[in-house]
Amino acid sequence: MEFTIKQIAEMLGGVVKGDTSLKINMLAKIQEARVGQIAFLSNPKYEHFIYETSASAVIVRKDFIPKKEVKSSLIMVDDPYSSFTVLLEEYHKMISFQKEGVEEPCFIGNNCTTGRSIYRGAFSYIGNNVKIGDNVKIYPHTYIGDNVVIGNNTILHANVKLYAGTVLGNHCIIHAGTVLGSDGFGFAPQEDGTYKTIPQLGNVILEDNITIGANTVIDCATLSGDSTVVRKGAKLDNLIQIAHNVEIGKNTVIAAQTGIAGSTKIGENCVFAGQVGIAGHLIIANQTSVGAQAGISKSIKEEGQKLIGYPVIDVKEYFRSYALFKQLPDINIRLRQLEQKLAAATSTVKTD
Amino acid sequence: MEFTIKQIAEMLGGVVKGDTSLKINMLAKIQEARVGQIAFLSNPKYEHFIYETSASAVIVRKDFIPKKEVKSSLIMVDDPYSSFTVLLEEYHKMISFQKEGVEEPCFIGNNCTTGRSIYRGAFSYIGNNVKIGDNVKIYPHTYIGDNVVIGNNTILHANVKLYAGTVLGNHCIIHAGTVLGSDGFGFAPQEDGTYKTIPQLGNVILEDNITIGANTVIDCATLSGDSTVVRKGAKLDNLIQIAHNVEIGKNTVIAAQTGIAGSTKIGENCVFAGQVGIAGHLIIANQTSVGAQAGISKSIKEEGQKLIGYPVIDVKEYFRSYALFKQLPDINIRLRQLEQKLAAATSTVKTD
Amino acid sequence: MEFTIKQIAEMLGGVVKGDTSLKINMLAKIQEARVGQIAFLSNPKYEHFIYETSASAVIVRKDFIPKKEVKSSLIMVDDPYSSFTVLLEEYHKMISFQKEGVEEPCFIGNNCTTGRSIYRGAFSYIGNNVKIGDNVKIYPHTYIGDNVVIGNNTILHANVKLYAGTVLGNHCIIHAGTVLGSDGFGFAPQEDGTYKTIPQLGNVILEDNITIGANTVIDCATLSGDSTVVRKGAKLDNLIQIAHNVEIGKNTVIAAQTGIAGSTKIGENCVFAGQVGIAGHLIIANQTSVGAQAGISKSIKEEGQKLIGYPVIDVKEYFRSYALFKQLPDINIRLRQLEQKLAAATSTVKTD
Repeated sequence: MEFTIKQIAEMLGGVVKGDTSLKINMLAKIQEARVGQIAFLSNPKYEHFIYETSASAVIVRKDFIPKKEVKSSLIMVDDPYSSFTVLLEEYHKMISFQKEGVEEPCFIGNNCTTGRSIYRGAFSYIGNNVKIGDNVKIYPHTYIGDNVVIGNNTILHANVKLYAGTVLGNHCIIHAGTVLGSDGFGFAPQEDGTYKTIPQLGNVILEDNITIGANTVIDCATLSGDSTVVRKGAKLDNLIQIAHNVEIGKNTVIAAQTGIAGSTKIGENCVFAGQVGIAGHLIIANQTSVGAQAGISKSIKEEGQKLIGYPVIDVKEYFRSYALFKQLPDINIRLRQLEQKLAAATSTVKTD
Repeated sequence: MEFTIKQIAEMLGGVVKGDTSLKINMLAKIQEARVGQIAFLSNPKYEHFIYETSASAVIVRKDFIPKKEVKSSLIMVDDPYSSFTVLLEEYHKMISFQKEGVEEPCFIGNNCTTGRSIYRGAFSYIGNNVKIGDNVKIYPHTYIGDNVVIGNNTILHANVKLYAGTVLGNHCIIHAGTVLGSDGFGFAPQEDGTYKTIPQLGNVILEDNITIGANTVIDCATLSGDSTVVRKGAKLDNLIQIAHNVEIGKNTVIAAQTGIAGSTKIGENCVFAGQVGIAGHLIIANQTSVGAQAGISKSIKEEGQKLIGYPVIDVKEYFRSYALFKQLPDINIRLRQLEQKLAAATSTVKTD
Repeated sequence: MEFTIKQIAEMLGGVVKGDTSLKINMLAKIQEARVGQIAFLSNPKYEHFIYETSASAVIVRKDFIPKKEVKSSLIMVDDPYSSFTVLLEEYHKMISFQKEGVEEPCFIGNNCTTGRSIYRGAFSYIGNNVKIGDNVKIYPHTYIGDNVVIGNNTILHANVKLYAGTVLGNHCIIHAGTVLGSDGFGFAPQEDGTYKTIPQLGNVILEDNITIGANTVIDCATLSGDSTVVRKGAKLDNLIQIAHNVEIGKNTVIAAQTGIAGSTKIGENCVFAGQVGIAGHLIIANQTSVGAQAGISKSIKEEGQKLIGYPVIDVKEYFRSYALFKQLPDINIRLRQLEQKLAAATSTVKTD
């Protein structure tokens, strides 16, 4: 990006105090911003940074009155944080949608439709009966199986793999190496100890505005007509495992290496830290927040809890118990001393 | 699939009561089955479903006598569950082996042999001296290194990577992005704190009927002539780590994100839940069952145990102890009260 | 490799006792070595093996005096272990750098420079403005984004993915399916519960002599000009997650499935076992050693500690506490008995 402060102010509906002609090419935190960069000040706690920053522009609340000299131009808006995130998103789109056209060799099957301004990188593979929207970016080595549907403005980074029948919404970003639609882990045990494979016939559906990190796996649903679903606005990190028939609620955030077993339904606006494990066939309430490496083995019914441990309990309770876990050797000694003292005391009493 | 009930009954050696000409195109659970689908009834507990189901056919025990009217055709067999799993497997094969022929461009090295009815997807890579059996399906972007051997009826989904020398049996299914034969993690520490790389010269062998999920990794064995081995019928899920020289026993099932360190030998018919960790150089007895996120640091000698925790202990013991872990703050208070009461009591006794 | 004992002795600056003309084609442990193989004896504890081994040659300390007949030729050196690791590394290089030339089809963008003796496998992709050193081996399906820089003697196994701007040093080995430079997990929460994507503009830098396993992910840094960095000689295993802005110190070793959250700085010569989780924004001291599945939630300031648990504590303390965790049901019973006895005793005292 390379915009004047004036252009950015117009984009945000803000008013400029200072030089409007300076050029901005980057966003930064106010304490780190340099010349040519734009920052924001929202929390009064950070006000002192505005008198020290080298940022060419700072987005501030429209009623902000500097107590000292400010070298940066100010863009006065209603809500600086929200204006800054608008810029972040615009910038993100600008740098993400630069690639366009078709690199050869690449492969496309029969009966496909592709929208305007799409990028098809070299060695990308598109099967039969695939529908691809406008402005979709398909990086090299991406595999798109038969009957896949992809909305507008969606980015598939290098070597994403979409099994047949996967459906992606608009404004999704899938990072390199991620697999959507692989077979769920379903095997019918036989009397002789072997297993027969249960055909996995459903698909994976991602709604709009989903981001998924690198080398993550989402399995398809078991039955034909069923789907493993990720709802609008959910954000998944790298190396995550989502099993068959799982549903992830709106705006839920899941950090790296977390695993969710089959048929579990995760609520909206939940936050899962890294390496969390969630058993199958559970229902997790909205706004549940789960600490790293926690294990969930039962449904969470009450909304808004903060949980940790295996199996999970309230965060504060866990740390209270863990503090005493560390003191168990001491607790054991105290217990033994009590036993000895009581034995001595009662024998004393008795012999009295 | 699209078969008449008559054809299915012949396949299963069963007898039909009802219309034999109806067409079946899908398998389903009895409580979910619709017209055109086939279900089974094995457990008498679910008998009421047979009077409500819309299934076109239900597989039942040959001595089954309905207590009410049944709309579905009945296929009478010795063992309905086992007949149903036969159908599942047949159906699975039918939908899995549809692709055939060679898509261009794809790459094949020198001195390779390939069997009948194989599929080589676009951008698949086959090195030198590779032997591939009949009916093998190689999806796009699959990498097959030099000297690899693949049996009959094996499926490599998109972008599977087989390092040089890997050996796969018959009827194996490997899902997208999985890596077999990468170098084991072996480094010789030097006096200056650096590490020298220990060459990894062995390979990976998969016996018959192995299924492996997506983005899983199995390292090759260290020494030339040695192998990391997965025995007949084992089923591995997604994102699993199997280190060098590990052996996985027959019909063992391993859920997602579990990791097994080098040289450990896992017995037959074990079941590992997700995110389990197993240290190196251990021996795990047959029929061991391990709960999610458990950690195994010593060999398990007794067969058939159910374990959990870190390090693992018996499941029931773990939950008994964990219930008290949660009560540790209360235990600590009770202990303090005892100490105070005893101090008071003994001082009372003494001052008496 | 196929060398005479004489050639190997010259390489190591050693002196031979015995036949110098025998040919060596493999390295092995002294207890496993066969004809045509070379082993070493460093620890006197293993001396008995030298009288039994079939190795054609054994590397020994120059002052070694056999107590019985030794059939193998001896190569006398200052430090047998270190000489053996030199051979290991030489052998490793020899088998790793065999591929050379360009397989078609492969893709290379504009304005790239490539060094001597490089291998570019079929379906490998190189973007624009890429600089590649001498003797670099790029296996099939590898993706190299724009502006990437790769040093000399570096190996990218099948389907490695390097996002634009990644920088790799000399003598690095990256295994199949690994992703370097994917977007960090950064989202700005909005008042309506949705998240806006924070553009990730930094890159990943690997210094020299780094090895990374298969299907691992390292995210790029958030700000332009910033880097996620892996320092000289570090060794990372498979399926590891390294978040944005992390720094991994020199010669640090990280086992499979470990995850490190954003902006954490890991010291030098640390050792992390498998499935460890490390929270964000921490500093971990040099020589820290962390057991499997441990969770680190606070900075580690003291060097050289051995830690385990969640959150981590000293290894010995953990196991002492865990031993008592297993006895909690018993501890609870002892506590109840004490309460009852004390109640009885005090009531006795009082009624006296």
